[in-house]
Amino acid sequence: MDWLTHKIQAPDQIYYQQALNKQAQLTKPPGALGLLEEIAIRLAAMQKTQQPKVEKIWLSVFAADHGIAEEGVSAFPQVVTTEMVKNFVAEGAAVNVLSRFIKAHFEVVDAGLIAAINSVEIISDRAGNGTANFSKQAAMTQQQMEVALNAGKSAVDRALSQQAHLFIGGEMGIANTSSASAIASALTGLSVNDLTGAGTGLPEDKIANKTNVLKKALLLHKNNLETPLNILQYLGGFEIAALVGAYVYAAQQGLAVLIDGFIASVAALLAMEINAECQGWFFYGHRSQEKGHQLVLEQLNARPLLDLDMRLGEGSGAVAAVPLLQMACKCHNEMATFEQAKITTQ
Amino acid sequence: MDWLTHKIQAPDQIYYQQALNKQAQLTKPPGALGLLEEIAIRLAAMQKTQQPKVEKIWLSVFAADHGIAEEGVSAFPQVVTTEMVKNFVAEGAAVNVLSRFIKAHFEVVDAGLIAAINSVEIISDRAGNGTANFSKQAAMTQQQMEVALNAGKSAVDRALSQQAHLFIGGEMGIANTSSASAIASALTGLSVNDLTGAGTGLPEDKIANKTNVLKKALLLHKNNLETPLNILQYLGGFEIAALVGAYVYAAQQGLAVLIDGFIASVAALLAMEINAECQGWFFYGHRSQEKGHQLVLEQLNARPLLDLDMRLGEGSGAVAAVPLLQMACKCHNEMATFEQAKITTQ
Repeated sequence: MDWLTHKIQAPDQIYYQQALNKQAQLTKPPGALGLLEEIAIRLAAMQKTQQPKVEKIWLSVFAADHGIAEEGVSAFPQVVTTEMVKNFVAEGAAVNVLSRFIKAHFEVVDAGLIAAINSVEIISDRAGNGTANFSKQAAMTQQQMEVALNAGKSAVDRALSQQAHLFIGGEMGIANTSSASAIASALTGLSVNDLTGAGTGLPEDKIANKTNVLKKALLLHKNNLETPLNILQYLGGFEIAALVGAYVYAAQQGLAVLIDGFIASVAALLAMEINAECQGWFFYGHRSQEKGHQLVLEQLNARPLLDLDMRLGEGSGAVAAVPLLQMACKCHNEMATFEQAKITTQ
Repeated sequence: MDWLTHKIQAPDQIYYQQALNKQAQLTKPPGALGLLEEIAIRLAAMQKTQQPKVEKIWLSVFAADHGIAEEGVSAFPQVVTTEMVKNFVAEGAAVNVLSRFIKAHFEVVDAGLIAAINSVEIISDRAGNGTANFSKQAAMTQQQMEVALNAGKSAVDRALSQQAHLFIGGEMGIANTSSASAIASALTGLSVNDLTGAGTGLPEDKIANKTNVLKKALLLHKNNLETPLNILQYLGGFEIAALVGAYVYAAQQGLAVLIDGFIASVAALLAMEINAECQGWFFYGHRSQEKGHQLVLEQLNARPLLDLDMRLGEGSGAVAAVPLLQMACKCHNEMATFEQAKITTQ
């Protein structure tokens, strides 16, 4: 796993400055396009171009099962992970509809479902038959973690082979907010109480149980949570590890990443703890309604583009923000300058 | 102007309920698409359909000049209104780029520039050669106001003739934040201090001057600000009146409206004061960075879709939110149900 700490180049400062200068010449009051200006400038620096674009969008949804599901921490039974993967293949899920809308390349990666699904439309990069129940033992072995991290790296390699301008990672895994909340608490020291929410729709009493399960798990593993990779191994999920691998590797390869909601943001936080320079390559799609997300966003110093009370995962909140990135680029590339339009600026 | 108070039908409750029921069957945790669900449900009720859509988007940008500009209340000189209208015709402005992106029908309406522009590409619906300086006299006569209100009504008629699914009104008019701030203060009783901001980029000392000009104007006209139409006549602008007319008439005709930023929201507030049932037909595109917008949104009980520090006007913030409405409809129409996808719901 040496590759995880390989150097990440910062986006190009010369193109950044050129884009900043160009924005000042466009026919609008300086700064009047708000975050759309910042997006275009950052993308110009990432893509080393004066004409940034977000046309080829790559969306990998990583699916995996979680042993912790047997603790009753989710509103849906574990079988729904597999059923939703079949729904992805049948193109019936929200993320399918949204990714069709933005014309993204969509793929589903089995990063470790409880059992493999026989379908040529699923990319099989399985780290195991679901994780172990991390309230009783480590979620995964080091070898499994390595496989899962590489599953994310491979997805980015596929994106790069198609000259993608943007990478989005989605996730599906019943009980994965439990894993994400535990990881966030271990990484930040913030209370599990503040980081544990309803997930897919757990009632209050079950959230209390979920919180207790996570507290016990953190206590059980407290001597094994020294490094971000330890935390991932003991508390993580295969799809979360895949996201971490994808995020780190995309940044290493100079590919912009659009982060989805709570689980994806926890993976982003792990990625940053592993290799801090990741951050320069991240955009944040949305603020999820899931309880812990705001706190994780603060840790990431992130300002998400959307705030629509979404809490679906699958990459859906990131995909919903893609048109904003595209419009940012279009304005940057296509607006007239004050000089071209002969506008008086005094 | 009798038409302004003609009855507005509420969106259809049966289609609303049907759409609400359908959302509960789609393959996602109930409510997990957040505001996207509410958007689709409301549009279904407005369009009286089980398959709401936002494909034909009509965008009318109303431009007019303001006599108050001579008080030094804007960072840009008055001539920029006309120059920007020419930029709209040349398709070089932000709103042109954004409306191309969403494939909107785009038109520019001269609602009262200081002088007419000789161009077949501009719709001429002129209420005058700019408003009078409302710090010295009424901004417009009642007859002028009537022409301007009708300019908005006519734009909606054009949109309806093309079977538009959504109406967006944009505005351009140097010094029109002054008019909007004064109107908002007169309508709500909130302080001019809290409602007056930088507009296109006024420095602090000039904002103080702008605030004083508006205070004096409100004092001058204090006995003539009894009704929303009085307020519009004494403090308004022709493009603001056109927006008011468009909003009221669109609601009367059952056409969904997407409101832009500060100035558009003040026009929406006027529209609601004139005919309260408007509100059921409004969506709000974004929260502007312009100082008074948040207060006006609160008066409207509005939750805007975007919050990106934009402050450009032209309709740009509304146009930027259109893909969210489209994605909301797509999810509503195209997602599989739990039954279709055979998902276990317990």
